[in-house]
Amino acid sequence: MKTKLTVIKIGGEIINNPEQLQAFLGDFSRLNEPKVLVHGGGKIATALSAKLGIETRMQEGRRITTKENLEVVTMVYAGLINKNITASLQSQQCNAIGLSGADASVIVASKRPSNPLDYGYVGDIQSINSKVIDTFVQSQMVPVFSAICHDGKGQLLNTNADTIATEIAIAMSEKYDTELIYCFDKKGVLMDVNDDDSVVEKINTDVYRNLREKKVIHDGMLPKMENAFHALNHKVSKVMIGNTDFIKDRTEAHTLLTL
Amino acid sequence: MKTKLTVIKIGGEIINNPEQLQAFLGDFSRLNEPKVLVHGGGKIATALSAKLGIETRMQEGRRITTKENLEVVTMVYAGLINKNITASLQSQQCNAIGLSGADASVIVASKRPSNPLDYGYVGDIQSINSKVIDTFVQSQMVPVFSAICHDGKGQLLNTNADTIATEIAIAMSEKYDTELIYCFDKKGVLMDVNDDDSVVEKINTDVYRNLREKKVIHDGMLPKMENAFHALNHKVSKVMIGNTDFIKDRTEAHTLLTL
Repeated sequence: MKTKLTVIKIGGEIINNPEQLQAFLGDFSRLNEPKVLVHGGGKIATALSAKLGIETRMQEGRRITTKENLEVVTMVYAGLINKNITASLQSQQCNAIGLSGADASVIVASKRPSNPLDYGYVGDIQSINSKVIDTFVQSQMVPVFSAICHDGKGQLLNTNADTIATEIAIAMSEKYDTELIYCFDKKGVLMDVNDDDSVVEKINTDVYRNLREKKVIHDGMLPKMENAFHALNHKVSKVMIGNTDFIKDRTEAHTLLTL
Repeated sequence: MKTKLTVIKIGGEIINNPEQLQAFLGDFSRLNEPKVLVHGGGKIATALSAKLGIETRMQEGRRITTKENLEVVTMVYAGLINKNITASLQSQQCNAIGLSGADASVIVASKRPSNPLDYGYVGDIQSINSKVIDTFVQSQMVPVFSAICHDGKGQLLNTNADTIATEIAIAMSEKYDTELIYCFDKKGVLMDVNDDDSVVEKINTDVYRNLREKKVIHDGMLPKMENAFHALNHKVSKVMIGNTDFIKDRTEAHTLLTL
């Protein structure tokens, strides 16, 4: 039987709430199995850009990344957020190691083609070096990834954190029984976006098709769902979506995805 | 016989000159022995602070680090500079891994006492985990350290990059035959600060005392020399000071320190 490994992605809403972040990092530290954390941080990057007079442009929820925007996200994601999370986990006896995809070349991406839309320095993942991630895991380290990758030719690239978590979970599934959890500010996928308790507890491909047709699932949730089913189709054992409460207590409401 | 290991520190003058930095990173990549890079980056941090309207205060060449200054140096050193250097080395077949002292808790520091002068979030190194650094080296990775440490209680701290390089070299000397090189913008210690070719080729403790008395060595060079002799007194085999030319070709002028 394969050893269990958990990959958790936390979004900007959690990172922007210091109390919630600290509580989550405590719960994450106490997970006994090998684990990997992936974090976003878009809101802090947007705020810093504004202070520096650098325009932030989004297209379908994705950041258009100019050279100046890339500098900002590299500073904020790989520096400020990644190192503060790492130091915080270390203080809770979790042997975190903060990484970008450039470090030990763990994640190689290629710059997205500028047609039909030029996203700038945005990377599409080409390869994950699961052996290197496993070297850290085997050395009792807990990898903490920011969403900055590189192209192997010296260029850093901004990549979606959900996608990084998904591809890491897939890559690690070769050796581990891998669970993938996307944490955000809701308890899960909601039937009614205005009712926090309307969590859809289980979504399989049929339910997903149905909810998408009824526009219950739309906008930002669509790529998350696509990532989730992509993971399930590539040997990831279990994919869940929920808020941070559910990391502490798995009986709390959340959405379980199945094929 | 111990295996050779080289620790090189590069300062802000080199980082601020993109062409020189790229040339150095190429030369560094081609060094065959196990190696560790430590970088500063104060000038970029000062420039970003200015853009953000955050005051930079220096005291005897050391940065007074307020909470806001700490955020800036964490972003610039551990994010922008560290990840760009890492990606650049990776593009030259050097398997770099960018680290802060918080990562895998490699460097634990304690906040400097606020008496007689409050430096703010500045750390004095308490311990270096040479075993973890050796795990990276043994895994054919090349650690690249920014000058950000942590206190083990969740607080990041700003630490002098020369001191980090010195303490890493000392810690690695237990297992390796360690050479320590401080790279800056001069060819070495100069007899005449206005004559770039007046390099003092060898400095031992007697020569040092003499040059210090004659005020040939003063100001910013003093802590560098103190670090150098501290390293030599703690089993580091060889300490050199020079510019980046000398990394490529060791026959180029530089200063060799001996006890």
